[in-house]
Amino acid sequence: MSQANLFYAQSGGVTAVINASACGVIETARRFPQRIGTVYAGRNGIVGALREELIDTGKEPAESIAALRHTPAGAFGSCRYKLKSWRESAREYDRLMAVFQAHDIRYFLYNGGGDSQDTANKVAELSIARGFPITCIGIPKTVDNDLPITDNCPGFGSVAKYVAISIREAGLDVASMCDSSTKVFVMEVMGRHAGWIAGAAGLASESEGDPPHIILFPEVVFDRERFLRKVRSCVDRHGFCTIVVSEGVKGPDGRFLSEAGGSDAFGHAQLGGVAPMIAELVKQQLGYKHHWAVADYLQRAARHIASATDVEQAHAVGKAAVEFAMAGKNAVMPVIVREPGAEYRWSIGEAPLAEVANVEKKMPAAYISDDGFHITAAARDYFAPLICGEDYPPYEHGLPRYAHLESVLAERKLPAWTGA
Amino acid sequence: MSQANLFYAQSGGVTAVINASACGVIETARRFPQRIGTVYAGRNGIVGALREELIDTGKEPAESIAALRHTPAGAFGSCRYKLKSWRESAREYDRLMAVFQAHDIRYFLYNGGGDSQDTANKVAELSIARGFPITCIGIPKTVDNDLPITDNCPGFGSVAKYVAISIREAGLDVASMCDSSTKVFVMEVMGRHAGWIAGAAGLASESEGDPPHIILFPEVVFDRERFLRKVRSCVDRHGFCTIVVSEGVKGPDGRFLSEAGGSDAFGHAQLGGVAPMIAELVKQQLGYKHHWAVADYLQRAARHIASATDVEQAHAVGKAAVEFAMAGKNAVMPVIVREPGAEYRWSIGEAPLAEVANVEKKMPAAYISDDGFHITAAARDYFAPLICGEDYPPYEHGLPRYAHLESVLAERKLPAWTGA
Repeated sequence: MSQANLFYAQSGGVTAVINASACGVIETARRFPQRIGTVYAGRNGIVGALREELIDTGKEPAESIAALRHTPAGAFGSCRYKLKSWRESAREYDRLMAVFQAHDIRYFLYNGGGDSQDTANKVAELSIARGFPITCIGIPKTVDNDLPITDNCPGFGSVAKYVAISIREAGLDVASMCDSSTKVFVMEVMGRHAGWIAGAAGLASESEGDPPHIILFPEVVFDRERFLRKVRSCVDRHGFCTIVVSEGVKGPDGRFLSEAGGSDAFGHAQLGGVAPMIAELVKQQLGYKHHWAVADYLQRAARHIASATDVEQAHAVGKAAVEFAMAGKNAVMPVIVREPGAEYRWSIGEAPLAEVANVEKKMPAAYISDDGFHITAAARDYFAPLICGEDYPPYEHGLPRYAHLESVLAERKLPAWTGA
Repeated sequence: MSQANLFYAQSGGVTAVINASACGVIETARRFPQRIGTVYAGRNGIVGALREELIDTGKEPAESIAALRHTPAGAFGSCRYKLKSWRESAREYDRLMAVFQAHDIRYFLYNGGGDSQDTANKVAELSIARGFPITCIGIPKTVDNDLPITDNCPGFGSVAKYVAISIREAGLDVASMCDSSTKVFVMEVMGRHAGWIAGAAGLASESEGDPPHIILFPEVVFDRERFLRKVRSCVDRHGFCTIVVSEGVKGPDGRFLSEAGGSDAFGHAQLGGVAPMIAELVKQQLGYKHHWAVADYLQRAARHIASATDVEQAHAVGKAAVEFAMAGKNAVMPVIVREPGAEYRWSIGEAPLAEVANVEKKMPAAYISDDGFHITAAARDYFAPLICGEDYPPYEHGLPRYAHLESVLAERKLPAWTGA
C-alpha cells in the first residue's frame, strides 16, 4: 500500500487525558512509516483543517510526544464547532475535502464526543462519494461519560477521581470545624445533562456518615422541602452536612436552578453557579453557617491527580484508532469493554460511528438511591474501577512539567478560508 | 523531674498539614515516657478543655499517629473560639486551670494562629500567678501566612502549591478552547486580609504569557477601568486571560467587592463570591465568554498535593514544641528560619509568644509588581521553595486513605461546663 498522511483533531471540551489519546495516536502512527507519512494535528480542532492550519507533529521530538501522556487539556487546541448536515454545512465539507486532498490526507482521526463522531461519519461517507476515500476513525473523549456502547469515556475517570478526593478532603475540613463554625459545605460539579460526575463523588462515602452526605442529580427534580429536611437531619445526626450538586440540577419547572435567577424558589438574582444558591437557601431556611466551592475547569484539567486507569484507556483508544485504520477498518470508534467477572478487566472493542453519533447515554436510574440523594451499590460497582491508580506527572520546582510543543504549521497550499 | 500530662489543641481554620504537627507532637512526646504521661488532645480545640472533653491519644496505635502526617484537616477537631483578656474571659481561664489541675496537665501546646498564641501566652502567665505553673508552647499554623517572626507558616506552602498547580492546569484548558469558546477564566482564592495565597499562584507563570495573567490582591484597590484594559490587552495578545482573585479584594470605598452586592460597580445582587462578580463584569463590559471557579475549602484541605517542604516543616514545629518544653523553655513558639544563601535551607528557631500574639505580618509591597497585577522576582524567590516536593498520601481503591482515630475521651473529673 502507498503512503498517505493522517489528520488528527481534538474536539469540544478538553479533559485531563485527551492528550494521552493524542500521544497514543502519534506514537503508534510513527510505527507505520511505510504507510503513514506526516501526522498533522488540527490547530484548534477541526477549525484548523478548515483554515488549513495543520500542525506538523513530525517536527516534535519523541520526548514531547511522550510528555503529552501526562499533560492536561488540548495541546493542539480544541474548538466548539459543529458541522451539520451535508446540505447545511456544504461549504465546510467541501473545504475539508479540498484541504485533505491538497495535503494527501487519507486518514482522519477525530477525538471528541457524539457530535464529533457524527462529523467523522459524514466525512467517511462523503469522501467515498467524492472518489477520494478517507479512512475515518473516531476516538472517544468526554468528561460527561455520555457516549453509547463504550463502557465509559476517557476523561471521565479522572474527573471522577478529582471530585471524590475533593469532597473527601473538604469533608474532613468541615468535620473539624462544625462544632463552632461551618456546618454545611456545598461543592458544585460538572454534568449539565447527566449525573455521572456527581454520582462518582459518592465513592468518597464508604461508611455511614462519610461525606458526601447528599448528592443532587440532574435526574432528580429538586424538591426544596425534602432537601432541607435531609440537610437538617444530617446535621442533627453527624454535626455537619456535605453536599455535591450537579450544575444540571433542575427545579419543578424544568429549568436549571442556576438559570432561575430571581425566581420564587430563591428570591435572588444570581450571577451563575448553583452551589451558592443552594448554600444560601440552607442559610436562610436553616440558619447554618455554610461554605461553597465551584470546581469548574479545575476538575477536568486536574492531571495532577488523574486516574491511572483513565490515562491508560485514553492512550489505548488513541493507539487502537491508528491500528484500526491500518487494519483497513473505517467509520468505527474504539470503545472500552468491561470484561465480565468480579475483578475489573477491560479490553478495546469497536463500534460503528453511525451507532455512536448523536446518541446520549443516560445514567441508569438504578444508580440513584431510592431517596434520590445518593448512589446505589450498582453505581459503586460501575464507578469504582474507573478512578483506580495514580499516574503522577513529573515535577520541577514544585510544579508539574507539562508538554510544550513547537506547533509548526505545514505550508499552505490553498487560498485562505473565509468561512470560519 | 516528675511526670505530668500534656494537652494539645488545634485552633482556627484547619490546613492540609496541621495533623502533621499533631503527629510531630505525639510521636516526640512518646519518646519522653519518664516526663510526659498522657498526651491529651482537646476535642474541637480549646473548647475540649473547657468541656473537659480530653481525647486520650495514648489509646491510638502508633500507625494511626503516623497516619496523621498524611491526613488533612483537624483530626481532633478545631474551633473558632477566642479567649479574650483575663477580665473578660475570667470564667474560661478559671475553668482551663481547673481542668489542667484535675488532669495533672503541666504542658499546654496550642497549634494555631495569632489569637491562639495570645491565649497560650496568657495561660503561661496566669498559671504562674496561680501557683500551678504550666509550660505553654505555641505551634504555628495558618494558610494565611500572617504570623510574624517565622519565615512562613505551616499550612501555607500546601495551599500555595495547590493554587499554583490549579491555575496552571485550568490555564492550559482555557488556552485550548479560547479560539472558539471561553476566553476569560477567574479563580478565587483565600486570603481575606493579605495576598499571600493569591501571590503564590503567580509561581505558575514562568514565561511571558503563562497563566495566571492577572492577580488581584487585597493590597491593591480594585480599579475597574484599569482592570478591564488589562484584560482586553491580555486577550488581544495571548488569545485568553486567566485571573486569580483574592477573596479579600476591596473597591475604592474600602469594602470587600464580595460584600458590595447591589453596588454601582456591578449593579447586581450577589450571593457571595468575588470570582463570579469579576467574571460577570468582564462579560458585560468586554463581551468575552467566561468561566470561574471558587476553590474554597478544596484549597486548604488538598493533602493529595501537599508541599513536601510544608509537611516536613509542620511535623518539625510539632516535634520542636515538645523538645522546647523538655528543655525547660516556656511561652515560646518554634519558628521556621530561612538560612542565608542561594540554595533554600531552613532550620527551627524560637520566638517569645508575647511577640507573636496578635501581630499580623503583611505581604511586603515589594512582592507586587509596579502595575499591581502580578508578583515580582523577590516574591518568586520567597514563594518558590515553599511549594517544593510532593508528599503523596497512600491510596486504596483510587482514594487517599486518611487516618481514622478512635478518639476515646478521658474520664471526667469535674462538673459539666456550662459556659460554652
